[in-house]
Amino acid sequence: MKLERILPFMRTLLEKAVSAGDVTVDATVGNGHDTLFLANLVGPEGKVYGFDIQEEAIQSCSSKLSAQNLNERVSLFQKGHEHVKASVPEKDHGKITGAVFNLGYLPGGDKSIVTGPTTTIAAVEQLLDIMAPEGIIVIVIYHGHPEGQLERDSLLEYVKNIKQDEAHVLQYQFINQQNHPPFILAIEKR
Amino acid sequence: MKLERILPFMRTLLEKAVSAGDVTVDATVGNGHDTLFLANLVGPEGKVYGFDIQEEAIQSCSSKLSAQNLNERVSLFQKGHEHVKASVPEKDHGKITGAVFNLGYLPGGDKSIVTGPTTTIAAVEQLLDIMAPEGIIVIVIYHGHPEGQLERDSLLEYVKNIKQDEAHVLQYQFINQQNHPPFILAIEKR
Repeated sequence: MKLERILPFMRTLLEKAVSAGDVTVDATVGNGHDTLFLANLVGPEGKVYGFDIQEEAIQSCSSKLSAQNLNERVSLFQKGHEHVKASVPEKDHGKITGAVFNLGYLPGGDKSIVTGPTTTIAAVEQLLDIMAPEGIIVIVIYHGHPEGQLERDSLLEYVKNIKQDEAHVLQYQFINQQNHPPFILAIEKR
Repeated sequence: MKLERILPFMRTLLEKAVSAGDVTVDATVGNGHDTLFLANLVGPEGKVYGFDIQEEAIQSCSSKLSAQNLNERVSLFQKGHEHVKASVPEKDHGKITGAVFNLGYLPGGDKSIVTGPTTTIAAVEQLLDIMAPEGIIVIVIYHGHPEGQLERDSLLEYVKNIKQDEAHVLQYQFINQQNHPPFILAIEKR
């Protein structure tokens, strides 16, 4: 397949936005795959701030980081991403070049614990405030579960109304597939 | 800006799909820019078939090709793209790896002459029939004019119903801009 699928395209966008030494945010640590990906992108001089409300996610990610000796460049918070602005030290405000959200529930975890539109939108607003110009927020939206459809609709409504002079908002979606496959919203701060 | 804009992304997709020596189609020659782009992509051993109903477009493209000595690898038809299957020689059926549509009217030309959904959809169906597997059709949709909105709606309805096992259909669109900027539908044959 030549057209890039959703998760590879998410990573392509982050690779475009993030260079070695940059500051990044994983807003939904989950199983930690994206945290590790960002930790490798930013290199030993860079920084990843990761957020997840579930202890299970933080612990699983933490052991993966230890196994690869990447702990020093990552700070994990067992908090919702709506605390991003208060949690990222002020010295790093204005330096964040990439952030990622994988919405929905923790794969293999408790499916009743899901992200929600209010906190997701609050986190995006805070990130737009403290990111660097040309920094990109990549959001992967899972809308197969009922709460996911509500979250999708609220998020779409919100991002469509972000002013053109504040950010570019791109939708990247395969539109002829069954079963509500995930799609991407990418927001580039101007 | 790090997120690829519409026309650069169109070219990125064609570059991914098309290699030197391949057969390609410019379904809307217009001012000839994409025809030249494809002619350079396919190289001296490749082929471009170009379609436009307007003599003005064919002549303008033809002089641009002559100026760069690219005529031999391009065949221009002053015909609508709904004649693509009948016009591309049978020896090249199954070999087309890239096709492009820039819908709407000829820039700088007669704005009352526009592409229409029936012929556009007919051309896409024929292309899916005679393209190579993994060949990509890139459609740039201009929906600022009233006919453009009807064409957009018909096309979206059509592509959403292309079966998953026949093609992947990707929508690539900036969704927070004023004035109906163009967006991309990319169809990859399976």
